[in-house]
Amino acid sequence: MVSASIITIGDELLIGQVIDTNSSWMAQELNKAGISVVRRVAVGDDANAIENALNQESEYAKIILITGGLGPTSDDITKPVLCKYFNGEMIVNEEALANVHYLFEKVFKRPITPVNIKQAEVPNVCEVIPNKRGTAPGMWFEKNGCIYVSMPGVPYEMQGMMQDDVIKKLEKKFVLPFIEHRTLLTSGIGESAIAEMLVDFEAALPAHIKLAYLPSYGMVRLRLSSTGEKRSSISAKVNAFFEQMKTIVSAYVVTDKDESIAQVVGQLLLSKGKTMCTAESCTGGYIAHQITLNAGSSKYYKGSIVSYDNSIKKDLLGVGENTLNSSGAVSEETVIQMVKGSLEQMKTDYAVAVSGIMGPDGGTIEKPAGTVWIAVGSKEKIETKKIQLRFDRKKNIEITCQHALDQLRKFIEIW
Amino acid sequence: MVSASIITIGDELLIGQVIDTNSSWMAQELNKAGISVVRRVAVGDDANAIENALNQESEYAKIILITGGLGPTSDDITKPVLCKYFNGEMIVNEEALANVHYLFEKVFKRPITPVNIKQAEVPNVCEVIPNKRGTAPGMWFEKNGCIYVSMPGVPYEMQGMMQDDVIKKLEKKFVLPFIEHRTLLTSGIGESAIAEMLVDFEAALPAHIKLAYLPSYGMVRLRLSSTGEKRSSISAKVNAFFEQMKTIVSAYVVTDKDESIAQVVGQLLLSKGKTMCTAESCTGGYIAHQITLNAGSSKYYKGSIVSYDNSIKKDLLGVGENTLNSSGAVSEETVIQMVKGSLEQMKTDYAVAVSGIMGPDGGTIEKPAGTVWIAVGSKEKIETKKIQLRFDRKKNIEITCQHALDQLRKFIEIW
Repeated sequence: MVSASIITIGDELLIGQVIDTNSSWMAQELNKAGISVVRRVAVGDDANAIENALNQESEYAKIILITGGLGPTSDDITKPVLCKYFNGEMIVNEEALANVHYLFEKVFKRPITPVNIKQAEVPNVCEVIPNKRGTAPGMWFEKNGCIYVSMPGVPYEMQGMMQDDVIKKLEKKFVLPFIEHRTLLTSGIGESAIAEMLVDFEAALPAHIKLAYLPSYGMVRLRLSSTGEKRSSISAKVNAFFEQMKTIVSAYVVTDKDESIAQVVGQLLLSKGKTMCTAESCTGGYIAHQITLNAGSSKYYKGSIVSYDNSIKKDLLGVGENTLNSSGAVSEETVIQMVKGSLEQMKTDYAVAVSGIMGPDGGTIEKPAGTVWIAVGSKEKIETKKIQLRFDRKKNIEITCQHALDQLRKFIEIW
Repeated sequence: MVSASIITIGDELLIGQVIDTNSSWMAQELNKAGISVVRRVAVGDDANAIENALNQESEYAKIILITGGLGPTSDDITKPVLCKYFNGEMIVNEEALANVHYLFEKVFKRPITPVNIKQAEVPNVCEVIPNKRGTAPGMWFEKNGCIYVSMPGVPYEMQGMMQDDVIKKLEKKFVLPFIEHRTLLTSGIGESAIAEMLVDFEAALPAHIKLAYLPSYGMVRLRLSSTGEKRSSISAKVNAFFEQMKTIVSAYVVTDKDESIAQVVGQLLLSKGKTMCTAESCTGGYIAHQITLNAGSSKYYKGSIVSYDNSIKKDLLGVGENTLNSSGAVSEETVIQMVKGSLEQMKTDYAVAVSGIMGPDGGTIEKPAGTVWIAVGSKEKIETKKIQLRFDRKKNIEITCQHALDQLRKFIEIW
């Protein structure tokens, strides 16, 4: 198995100012190509720290992918550190220079400054990986049988480089095995209860197939993984056990693909030729966002009325003044009326409505923060559900969205 | 300076199935307490890999915070690995056991299984950190002058433990310096151009004050950082340079606090006693979500009409059939009418509307993917702007949101 380590560079990672999304994206791509990621390390914009990481990670991995610290400003030191580490000298790369000129003249339409020109300099001991999306070129070094690839920290620049060049070059360089992952998304059951159901199944798994439990937002993902030389044989084995596992937990299965609940709902609507809309209070547009993140969602999703203020619930969704006064905005009656109102206003087959208190403020003894009412329905039928969450605001919003979409999924499957 | 390293454990981190948000949150908390994070490492659920990381990180840091691998299932091996590493034996912790019983009987209301009971076992060589939000207790070990704290990977459980106990215990254990960060958010200027403006300023900075450029979503954050023993003296010095920097780039300043553009807009509306709403097509609820993520946003934010389908633009926002036919949904006329329609429907002082093509599909030669029209306005005046993005769907949505809110901010400041 060819192993890789990912080094991300930047003080912003160590003070927590940014969340590192690059590493997980890169890990996914490497896995798909049959390369196993064994470690991920983040260090600051510090020459010693970078050198230590380069030394150390080469003991764990044959491939070391590096992102960050290639910007034009003085806190970006990755390039000179790599140049020194690999005993090189800085030279201007003509192709990279032409790219800088092209980007500033044709795309950014801003004047070029001397620091931008400096972006085209690279160590003379590396192979340049073109950056079609930004000014900083990627760099490919080899030393003592290890490959080091330095890429910008800007996600879409790094992603472009990985997809256009880096993965292809790695595939040429190594004989790569095949990694198979199959993922089952479940809902309505806790991690330990589902593990209990799978005790015998797991004990009977061959050593080369691994089962992982990944709880997320009130759902549990079950992942079977294996590695082998032949795609066909490894796939067949994993698939056989996967089907067995699926049968055991069938009552809780949401999807047998590695997809989001919003994608599952979308596929279901497409297959039925139906449409949906949302009426959101406490989730404030997050459900709509999760749905519309998926390209092609306009085929089944018409829109949302985010009725954050009660006046919108009344004026646009037709929730009764009486209902709001007697039962309150967070009530079964309100979400039922929100479903009815949104179906009428947006003329869809299905609607989902949520109203709740996301916290930290706004709770009462009767309705503490985390109280949420969900309604899903069509013109013929409406179903409701009350959930009680106990997380922070952001997580309460995210979990409410998962519950609402899962509730809608179950409804569409039957009605 | 007391240094810390963060080790996150879990195969899901190495295959990229989850994004690690714990590390950045922990890094922020440690920084606030005057502890400098020097490295972050992610390893898989593998005993050797965990032991290597424990050995190696102790060479870089006095404090090693560990998350993950404490779940009830068989792929969670952190606890036995730590027990062996610190030469302990597993014993039942009565307090943790009572907590497991309490959570299952009173909170989850699910039957307890043997694996849940096992959660209450801890190595006899650690101090237990109570977990009020879940079943897995935290563990505090000391060895050769290093402190190792193991916490669950579930973010809100880890966060509760850090805030309730871990930071306080670390503050007792060490004499901690003060770390000062000041952050300036700018818009309308690129990273290299702003660096150019700050060349002399940066050259004149004393060695103990560091300037970092953090580009994000088309804006650039400038961060000054310093460390010292006395809060007052270090703050005064950083603040003086910060004010100087602010003056140099004043034309581009959005905020001098470390806050989001949605928070800036919210503060502005609160200070003026005004309200706003949104009319979103291509961002599909994301702008509403960014605003309502902030507690208290109901004071100034009324709601959104997410008009993903043209029928909603017509029926709910009053966009003319003629406009949609002649100019199209992605046009200046459409977003102007969306602002007018949403102001009327939701009766707010200000509105922002967006319509665009987020890609990857849906573009034409005249309007390629990434074309977005933004309008902001009030009853008195409407301003429009066209932007051309070149990212993936998710990033196009996020950047459109930043542009729209920044445009609204400028509008509210003047009108």
